[in-house]
Amino acid sequence: MKLSDGVEQAIHSVAMLASLEDNQVLSAAALAEFHGVSPSYLLKHLQTLSRSGILGTFPGPKGGYYLAQSPADISLLDVVLAVEGPEPAFRCKEIRRNGPNPVPDGFFTAPCQISAAMLRAERSYRAELKSVTISHLLADVQRDDDGTLAARSCVFLDANVRITPQNRSQEPG
Amino acid sequence: MKLSDGVEQAIHSVAMLASLEDNQVLSAAALAEFHGVSPSYLLKHLQTLSRSGILGTFPGPKGGYYLAQSPADISLLDVVLAVEGPEPAFRCKEIRRNGPNPVPDGFFTAPCQISAAMLRAERSYRAELKSVTISHLLADVQRDDDGTLAARSCVFLDANVRITPQNRSQEPG
Repeated sequence: MKLSDGVEQAIHSVAMLASLEDNQVLSAAALAEFHGVSPSYLLKHLQTLSRSGILGTFPGPKGGYYLAQSPADISLLDVVLAVEGPEPAFRCKEIRRNGPNPVPDGFFTAPCQISAAMLRAERSYRAELKSVTISHLLADVQRDDDGTLAARSCVFLDANVRITPQNRSQEPG
Repeated sequence: MKLSDGVEQAIHSVAMLASLEDNQVLSAAALAEFHGVSPSYLLKHLQTLSRSGILGTFPGPKGGYYLAQSPADISLLDVVLAVEGPEPAFRCKEIRRNGPNPVPDGFFTAPCQISAAMLRAERSYRAELKSVTISHLLADVQRDDDGTLAARSCVFLDANVRITPQNRSQEPG
């Protein structure tokens, strides 16, 4: 069981976009440069985050990405499910029905005990991820930062942020 | 994030082996036939379960697999980690250190907040899987079975079980 590298990149990107003003966006190229990752790979995940409603996009050559929701409303679970898809990690193939001497189909009305136990674990995993928001993460980082990280982000944002013609909240869609 | 199909097959196989007497084994081919799955794919996972100490093997053309531990001592977590490997699903690449204006290496002594949150969720997942043993699963199945499943297994075991020359506990290794 392995989460894709896209999960780490997506969470860091969402956290970085949380610091933008209401009329600012960042390009995929800038987000990739800041995190030292492949622009094409990151772009794929930014597009997924956008389709799932976590990010918004300002189109055009001077456009870019911004948070479409409040950082307090975006959980780690939201980002993980956007990147990895909604299906649980354990996908029961109902192999108990296979093989010789199959029992009548109607016999297996209750879910398999194995599947039920695996899904209980998945619910526990998801509940923990749902309890942590981007706001929580940023507060944690801020608490541990002596100013070094904030300064680094500021220098980069000053050089890379794109100003949109009007506040994003006034844009359609 | 997806667990391999081997997880379902491994758990069902371990549960089936739990019903063997102390001088009985089942071949990989029989386990594959009962569950209607690819023998070569299942064999790979049986070998992994054997290497991890969950299964024992009786060698030779009349040999096969048996449980090397009590069903009460084998948790779902043991089987999942044997099949999927011990690494957590989220593998932090520390991309926070990348990109322009890197901060000094010594700055990142504490683990990344994102990694910490992801690992908390993984611990919660694993704790749930650790709390369910093969004994628990068998008790659940028995509780819900009107005798149909037990009868099917008995017919199959009668036809496929291999008797070892002596009790397995007397075998070296």
